[in-house]
Amino acid sequence: MNASLQLDAQGRLRHLLTTEGLPAAMIRHILDTADQFVSVNEREVKKLPLLRGKAIFNVFFENSTRTRTTFEIAAKRLSADVINLNIGASSTSKGETLLDTVYNLQAMDADMFVVRHAQSGAPHLIARHVKPGVAVINAGDGRHAHPTQGLLDMYTIRHYKKDFSGLTVAIVGDVLHSRVARSQIHALKTLGVPELRVVGPKTLIPADVERMGVRVFHDMDAGIKDCDVVIMLRLQNERMNGALLPSAGEFYKAYGLNASKLAKAKPDAIVMHPGPMNRGVEIESSVADGHQSVILPQVTFGIAVRMAVMSILAGQAPGGSA
Amino acid sequence: MNASLQLDAQGRLRHLLTTEGLPAAMIRHILDTADQFVSVNEREVKKLPLLRGKAIFNVFFENSTRTRTTFEIAAKRLSADVINLNIGASSTSKGETLLDTVYNLQAMDADMFVVRHAQSGAPHLIARHVKPGVAVINAGDGRHAHPTQGLLDMYTIRHYKKDFSGLTVAIVGDVLHSRVARSQIHALKTLGVPELRVVGPKTLIPADVERMGVRVFHDMDAGIKDCDVVIMLRLQNERMNGALLPSAGEFYKAYGLNASKLAKAKPDAIVMHPGPMNRGVEIESSVADGHQSVILPQVTFGIAVRMAVMSILAGQAPGGSA
Amino acid sequence: MNASLQLDAQGRLRHLLTTEGLPAAMIRHILDTADQFVSVNEREVKKLPLLRGKAIFNVFFENSTRTRTTFEIAAKRLSADVINLNIGASSTSKGETLLDTVYNLQAMDADMFVVRHAQSGAPHLIARHVKPGVAVINAGDGRHAHPTQGLLDMYTIRHYKKDFSGLTVAIVGDVLHSRVARSQIHALKTLGVPELRVVGPKTLIPADVERMGVRVFHDMDAGIKDCDVVIMLRLQNERMNGALLPSAGEFYKAYGLNASKLAKAKPDAIVMHPGPMNRGVEIESSVADGHQSVILPQVTFGIAVRMAVMSILAGQAPGGSA
Repeated sequence: MNASLQLDAQGRLRHLLTTEGLPAAMIRHILDTADQFVSVNEREVKKLPLLRGKAIFNVFFENSTRTRTTFEIAAKRLSADVINLNIGASSTSKGETLLDTVYNLQAMDADMFVVRHAQSGAPHLIARHVKPGVAVINAGDGRHAHPTQGLLDMYTIRHYKKDFSGLTVAIVGDVLHSRVARSQIHALKTLGVPELRVVGPKTLIPADVERMGVRVFHDMDAGIKDCDVVIMLRLQNERMNGALLPSAGEFYKAYGLNASKLAKAKPDAIVMHPGPMNRGVEIESSVADGHQSVILPQVTFGIAVRMAVMSILAGQAPGGSA
Repeated sequence: MNASLQLDAQGRLRHLLTTEGLPAAMIRHILDTADQFVSVNEREVKKLPLLRGKAIFNVFFENSTRTRTTFEIAAKRLSADVINLNIGASSTSKGETLLDTVYNLQAMDADMFVVRHAQSGAPHLIARHVKPGVAVINAGDGRHAHPTQGLLDMYTIRHYKKDFSGLTVAIVGDVLHSRVARSQIHALKTLGVPELRVVGPKTLIPADVERMGVRVFHDMDAGIKDCDVVIMLRLQNERMNGALLPSAGEFYKAYGLNASKLAKAKPDAIVMHPGPMNRGVEIESSVADGHQSVILPQVTFGIAVRMAVMSILAGQAPGGSA
Repeated sequence: MNASLQLDAQGRLRHLLTTEGLPAAMIRHILDTADQFVSVNEREVKKLPLLRGKAIFNVFFENSTRTRTTFEIAAKRLSADVINLNIGASSTSKGETLLDTVYNLQAMDADMFVVRHAQSGAPHLIARHVKPGVAVINAGDGRHAHPTQGLLDMYTIRHYKKDFSGLTVAIVGDVLHSRVARSQIHALKTLGVPELRVVGPKTLIPADVERMGVRVFHDMDAGIKDCDVVIMLRLQNERMNGALLPSAGEFYKAYGLNASKLAKAKPDAIVMHPGPMNRGVEIESSVADGHQSVILPQVTFGIAVRMAVMSILAGQAPGGSA
């Protein structure tokens, strides 16, 4: 998967497929643009005409009401026309059918595709085949990437911690299966976080993860000690009670974030989670709802970040293009 | 379920959860506001900018294409952005998950939630937890309430009968399981209907219904004699042929509204039904389509009443706020 | 099914139900109107206010994401409010229920119904019962008609071949079950195509098709010899390996369009397909993607044609009414 696919010859954002290889300047441009939209979303009339007359297709080959909704809201706030398509995996079992679906939608004069797919690399395949002027946003592909989630997490960290250069960040839980973790790790490394840790049982940490420049911890207390940011990952239901994990209860005991474990981190550490949470599995309710939690602000910032990505891709960002 | 939850300290509408305890002045304000929207809906361009830039979430934990559509149209006519979410009951089996879902949507800067839920009280639970400025409309909760249906029924009766003070009204059928009947009874009592009757078999009339100020009839002819308004309820398919009821055929024979039974009511009586109708079970086709039927006008008025409720909750009613 | 239902006493388009009996002048008016919308769809802001404040209901009793999407985009480009309703056939097993559904939606002040139904004639039934001012577009009914597909095919042929008067056109495949083929045949005959052929195995050609003025070929090479236009039909999955057909492989061998068969047609022949294609069943990939294929332009023109039909029905066509 060629990361350069997402930048054009002038270094402008052409698609958003992954945070891997996304230059720090582009990440900062996206976050700065999102800053302006956060204030729009607090206004009485949460609406800008930046994408008026543009057709944005939410093409979800894998169902996700929550993620689809965030893109739908972001697009509507920019006055785009939004078309939601939930396409069962069954109707696109063959690779060529996926492209035929895309070619057909493109022939309807689509301007942007927001693509979710269970197969890693599907949005890249689409990006390689769309016409000039049509942009692709990866809304989650297999275990590979979920770049808008990664970027909203960067926005959140920057909002609370200002600067990445002195931070210790821990990502806790099922790193192995998490596209969110991958997108976070790439962005955090690019933005210069000096100490990046992943914490979890051996069965849920990728074998080669240290090559990405992270430190591996299997002990939770050691892993979150002195952290500025603690990012909890969602434990997929299908993993629980499977071969990789003794049980949800055992997992919670070892890696679930409760108040006493959180006390190991810095006193002003923030707690993040991409949602939806399994309370009592990854995280104790008192921590999820506590004063260190920024889980709901993540959602709010996520709308602004998606508006930023869409407007930059359409060449319509309010403060000019990067 | 605290009815006062829906009014603020100044007596303004904060949420719409139930017609129980809703003051007569507020009901009249809603109906008067709806009057103005009825004329909008007859215009060439059925669109007002009152809710431009507002985000209205139709959050349906129980599926209802029909009810969802009426709210979607009402919101679009007011120029709001509408997001439809059909959330299976399965994903919200735990109460905390329901609130997590709502907190997440609220973090996306929602302005209003239209909530349908199989569990009585779910919209109240949500209303107790949303932020200031976020309003909740109950679009039907369990057997408890369906206030916009109750209000559109009041609009319809007022439209045809002008004044409530001299009316005899009968509600016929499965009162026991009907949230519509509950919402109608509370509103009709508040508006001063002197003679309110419920008519049906013992198994389908709540034991304590007389405490609500209604008279109970098990004989249909006696029940609708001299009525000004006859409201038929929908018989849920799952009740038919069950333990509570001998059969759909038997029910129709005893309580189905046909021309000869309707002749017992006043000559200018109107016939209402919340829809969708089971023709030949609750009502004879010739009556459903006859000149005394106001079943389709109920639907038309329903759009205007929902526009009224939404614009009042948003502080944007055309004639000022109550 | 009375074709005259779709024209009013002044010969204006009242509904679009079928291409059968649609006058040549009306077809040309629709195609000329679509010409103007094709250029709109190439603009930066693909939006016109022609249907602002109109409520268009996509009422799909038979699921079709693809067709529904084309109507949804067309309506949104005209600034209409679009309501999508997927209504399972189960809930409308009785004819009277279909009409009750329509009456209810009409009472919500619908301006236009786009109807898809598995039963031939359902849109006609609806058209006979709607109020003055409410228009019905048939988006495919049973084996009967799919007039917007037929019209977009006419637009495509006119775009590439300018004039119908000297053309040889072949429609290839499962003509028996194809509403698309029926709509094409009526329109092509009306527009004066002198040589119209259907090509396929005996089991998939209607017995009386010659009465429609077409020539029947069971041999593919003979059927497409010297054609200007080759229209491939979709082979429904449920027909494959059934009693009517030996197998998908046998069908492809005899009637699948490959390069060597296409060489029998004129060198500048165009290849059409209503989509979605079964590559390797009806058509070879190299032909589907080849320089003679106009399959994707069909999709693009389809949006413009649907915009044309909607704006003419609403009395809002940009160049006046026919």
